[in-house]
This record gives sequence, C-alpha cells and structure tokens, in this order.
Amino acid sequence: MKEVRVETPGGSYPIRIAPGRLDRLAEAVPADATTLVVVTNPTVAALYAERAEQALAATGRPILRIELPDGEQYKDWQTLNLIFDAMLARHCDRKAVIVALGGGVIGDIAGFAAAVYMRGIRFIQVPTTLLSQVDSSVGGKTAVNHPIGKNMIGAFYQPIAVEIDTDVLSTLPAREVSAGLAEVIKYGAILDADFFAWCEAHAQDLRALEPGALAVAIARSCELKAYVVSQDERETGLRAILNFGHTFAHAIEAGLGFGAWLHGEAVGCGMVQAAELSARAAGLPQSDAERIRGLVLAIGCPVYAPDLGTDRWFDLMQGDKKTEAGQIRFILLPRLGEAVRTPAEAGLVRQVLDRTVARTAGEQPATLA
Amino acid sequence: MKEVRVETPGGSYPIRIAPGRLDRLAEAVPADATTLVVVTNPTVAALYAERAEQALAATGRPILRIELPDGEQYKDWQTLNLIFDAMLARHCDRKAVIVALGGGVIGDIAGFAAAVYMRGIRFIQVPTTLLSQVDSSVGGKTAVNHPIGKNMIGAFYQPIAVEIDTDVLSTLPAREVSAGLAEVIKYGAILDADFFAWCEAHAQDLRALEPGALAVAIARSCELKAYVVSQDERETGLRAILNFGHTFAHAIEAGLGFGAWLHGEAVGCGMVQAAELSARAAGLPQSDAERIRGLVLAIGCPVYAPDLGTDRWFDLMQGDKKTEAGQIRFILLPRLGEAVRTPAEAGLVRQVLDRTVARTAGEQPATLA
Repeated sequence: MKEVRVETPGGSYPIRIAPGRLDRLAEAVPADATTLVVVTNPTVAALYAERAEQALAATGRPILRIELPDGEQYKDWQTLNLIFDAMLARHCDRKAVIVALGGGVIGDIAGFAAAVYMRGIRFIQVPTTLLSQVDSSVGGKTAVNHPIGKNMIGAFYQPIAVEIDTDVLSTLPAREVSAGLAEVIKYGAILDADFFAWCEAHAQDLRALEPGALAVAIARSCELKAYVVSQDERETGLRAILNFGHTFAHAIEAGLGFGAWLHGEAVGCGMVQAAELSARAAGLPQSDAERIRGLVLAIGCPVYAPDLGTDRWFDLMQGDKKTEAGQIRFILLPRLGEAVRTPAEAGLVRQVLDRTVARTAGEQPATLA
Repeated sequence: MKEVRVETPGGSYPIRIAPGRLDRLAEAVPADATTLVVVTNPTVAALYAERAEQALAATGRPILRIELPDGEQYKDWQTLNLIFDAMLARHCDRKAVIVALGGGVIGDIAGFAAAVYMRGIRFIQVPTTLLSQVDSSVGGKTAVNHPIGKNMIGAFYQPIAVEIDTDVLSTLPAREVSAGLAEVIKYGAILDADFFAWCEAHAQDLRALEPGALAVAIARSCELKAYVVSQDERETGLRAILNFGHTFAHAIEAGLGFGAWLHGEAVGCGMVQAAELSARAAGLPQSDAERIRGLVLAIGCPVYAPDLGTDRWFDLMQGDKKTEAGQIRFILLPRLGEAVRTPAEAGLVRQVLDRTVARTAGEQPATLA
C-alpha cells in the first residue's frame, strides 16, 4: 500500500492507495462515529455500494445510503438538500460520518454537505474515478454549482481520510480514463518536467490501465498536489497554479452547459489553449506547447475548443472566480514544469482562441462528435 | 471606545463598541477590498443603510446593497440564494467584502453567505439588535434553518471585525430589548455569578436602555462569550455551555414555528426550564432557580413555555443537534455561575415540563398573547 500524507493548517489526513482498499474501509472510521452515511449515485452503487457497506458494517455502526442522481448537472443545491433531508430524517448527529463513494461530483457535493451539516461533520473520500483520485480527493475543495457558474458555492474542508482502490478503475469508461489522465499530465506540466516526460513515455500504458504505471501516476499526482496544498490551503498563492488550463476549461463547460464535456476533457483542451497563450505571453518555447498538445492528444482528450463566439468566450472567462477587479488572470508556463499566475492581454487571448477553437466538426475527437 | 479582542484558531478579530461606530465603518474595510456588499433588510435599511453606505463610500469602493425579507422564517436557502444571485450578477470576486447590517438573522445568513461564496470571502458584522450584539456577532456561528430544524446548515466562520454602535438600540422595540437581555443574563448564570447579581440590580436600567448600564452589559457579555469561544472554536467542549436554555428554546421555536417567539424570548423561558431541571438533576439550590426565574421575568421575557404536548416536546428536543446517540443532553447549573453538560432522566424532564408549561393563556406575558 502506498500512503501519501497531506498536511494542511486545517488538518492532516492520509491518502491510502492500493488494490482492494474498498474492502478495508472500516480502518478509516473513527471510534466515536455514530451513523455512517454512504453518499453515492446509482451507477457506482450498482458496482460497489454493497462491498463498501459490507466493509463498513464491520464497525457495527448503522449505515444510511443516499443515492444522488448521476451527473454534473445535478451538482446543485437541490441535490445537496437530498443529503440534508435524509440525514435529518434519520436524526443523524454531529458524530455521523459521511463516506463519499463516487467520482468528483459525489466528492464535491458530499464533502460540502459534510462541511455545512450542523456546521461541519467528518467525511471519508472513496474516489472511484481516476480524475477524482488524482484531483478532487486531494486538497479539501468542496462545492456545488450555481446557474451563473461552476463551483461558486462551497467550502475548503478536509476529509479525515482518502481511500483509493485502484481496482475500481477497471469499470471506468475509456473517456473518463482520458479525462483523469488530463489532470495527471497537468501536474507534470506545472511542477515536474521529468514526470511530464515519463507520462509521454507511458501514455499508452496509462490509457490501457496498466497497473504499475497507474500506481506511479496516481501516487506522484497526489504527492505533487499534496505538496502544493500543504503550502497554501486556501488558494491565496501557489495553489492557483493547479488551475492551469481551468480558465479556458470553465468557459468550455459553462458555454456548452455543464456535463456536455467531462471536466477533465475540458481541462485537457484548456491546457492546450493555456500552453498556446504561454508561448505568446510567458516565453514557453513553441516546441513545448506542441509537446503539451501532443500529450493531450495521446491520452485521448480533445485539443480543439468549441466555437462559442469570441465575445461569449471572454464573458465566460470573466465570470470565472479567478477574475480580480475585472482583469482576466491565467496560469501560464514560462517553461515546462514551472507555472506563474499572470494577467494576459486580450489581443493575445484572441489569437489563442482563433488558433484553438474548432472551425469544423472534423477537428473534434470522435468521442465528442 | 471599548474593544474586545476575540482570538480563535481560525482567526482573530476586534469587537469595537461605541456610540456612532456606524459612521466609522470605513475603518474596518481592508485595503484590498473590491465590492462592498451591504446585506440588510427593509426595516434596518430604512433606518441605517444610507448612513452605513455613506461611511463605507469613504473607501472609494463600489457598494452593492442586498435587502433580504425580514424575519426568522426567511432564514433559509432561498433567501441565502438571493445574496449569491446578486453578487454573481455583479461579478463580485473573492475580494468582495460582505457587511452584515442587521440583527441575528442577517448576521447568520450573511455570515454563511460569506463562508461559502466562492468557498469563503471576508465579512464585517454590524449588529443592530441587542441580541445580536451580545450573542450572534461573537463566535463565528453562521447558519440557515432547515424545515426539520433550526440552524441545521451552516459553518463556523469568523468575521474580520464586529462594529457595535450602541446608539442604534434606541430604535429597537421593547420586546427585542428583553430578548437581548435574556442572553446577557445567560452569561451571568453560566459563568459569572457577580455579573448575574449586577444584572439583578440593574434590570430596569437595562430595559430602559440607560447608556452606562448598556455599555457594561454588552462589553461584559462579549468578553465572557469571547473567552468561551477562544477556548473552543468548534463547540466540542466548553462552548456547549453557551447553549444553556437552548434545548428547551429550540423546541419552543420549532414547536410554535420559527418567528412566533423571538429567539431571546425562547432562551429566556428555556433558562427558567433549564434552571428547574438543574434544581432536580444537578444540585442547583431551588432558591437560585427562583432567582433565574425572577430575573427572566424582570427583564420582560416569558417564564411559561407553550403547551406543545409532552411527546412533541420530547420529539423536538431529540431533533435538536445537541443530541448524541439518541440521549438528550442538557446544559445544567450545579450552582449559579457554573455550567456542566449532562444527560438528564426523562422522568425529571417530564416534571419540569409539568411545572413550566403554561396551562392557561393568563400565564403568558401580554406581549405574547
């Protein structure tokens, strides 16, 4: 078993990575827990809820399962309220523990429920997608969406443990594997050029879920993210570099409607765009922008962005919460493995949109047709 | 000007108490603030919003006023969303600062909005009722209600400053003065028997808003609460004693529908009930229980509880979040000025209900008829 320890001012917790962790969830449950509240969705529940609940039953605690509708479009207050309704109806107290069993949407919404139920109860993350294993389960960001923007309502709130069972990826659709790999290569791009090169060399192994390669990629991603988060829990400085590609990605997701693309797909495409902008505005060699484009393509993510219209692109990027005082700031790469946060001239952004927005349907990968 | 400093693990902030603080709000605004978002209600706005906004205008920052419907019955997600909608429509970023101008409902809801808007922005409390000045503005408890219970969804989140203008109490209805004084005497009952005796001697001065007495009462209440909160930000231990009277009070409020009684009125009555229970279950001399009843009456709060039916009383008290594993715990007084958290036998609770529940309309104070 690999263990990555995340230290933050708000708390410290372990990320445990191994095949079969699902069957050992009882190890993560604190001794004074009352009800164990498994928050999941029907897709994940059909595959893993019984195994998870059987493992949790070893604690002798009552278990309440809450199945939420599946999909980013349900990551809203109404769905969040389903958790509160069910927990209050069962008289769950402050020592109830939420177990978030699912991908990023389940983690975000169940984590936010834990953050605000009776002003905060404990929760355990059991991420079942590659994306959530390497991204949303590390760092304590929880949220729901608002009609005006993604993740607008939320909290920084740390789990007490993250349990990553690498076996569960075998049931993941290929498209979600690609989306998860987008976040993996992001860590290389912004923090670790050697890891980026390792990903280039192992792109096909990763897509094929080769166990050895996966374990390296997940553990290294968690370590790199844990390093950043431990430096900056509340996203006031360094942590912002984790948003590499995200200003473009959020515009894609908001512009197309949340859920049309997977978040990781949007991040993959957004990184291609941010790399192009880096070449124009931050000194990244054009050859490195091409390497990023090449690797995004190799892991199976889109490299052309949707044609939302330039004005709408700018509106959507300005609505993103990384805006300060009306100026759009981006995370850009001066070189591979190094990231800075900087405003960019609108003219350069326009050039990037001209170059990266799909003009024909044929420019999109087949998965998104 | 009196200043009480509140130190908590989650942050440190000043409470400034003086006549005319409303005109000096600009002093509390941080240099990097973007939009200043004044959250208030129509009643308070008509009296004080222009003065507050004129004071804030000295910072040169844009001001967005958001008026919420007035009353505890609107302390819910729908009203909270009005804040998010207005702020997102104005592209408020993470450096926007919320100014909560109003009583406890405004403070709770605006504070919770600050806690979760873009995962947390700064806010300043400007409490305009006596209750909120001595209670909800100290300690960082924010929340909205759920149909099943009061304050079920919320966060522990500290303001960056609390500004208490004692002049504004002159426009407060007498009933709200009494409700605020209930919390003042609570601090004496649980922590400071000398302060309790001082309140007994000055009950009529306080009801008449005599400025010198008020200043002493507000500052001492804030100091006592700040002491408790600084020991225990997240309500895992000592802080629970602040809930003296609240298990009964929450049942009253939930049983009658939130808003029928003022929160402080319910707390006043709840303290009479908790004192009776203390005499039966914690060794409080019956004469001290009578002193508490006498002072609650002297400050103008109800001393008889509504007749909800015994079963419903128990249901409502069990639904309160101070329940753990199904057992009802109370804050009780072994003696005046000292509080403990302890479970109580149902039989004794039943005796207290028999003794304190109103059997005739004449047992209620005229204000609640």
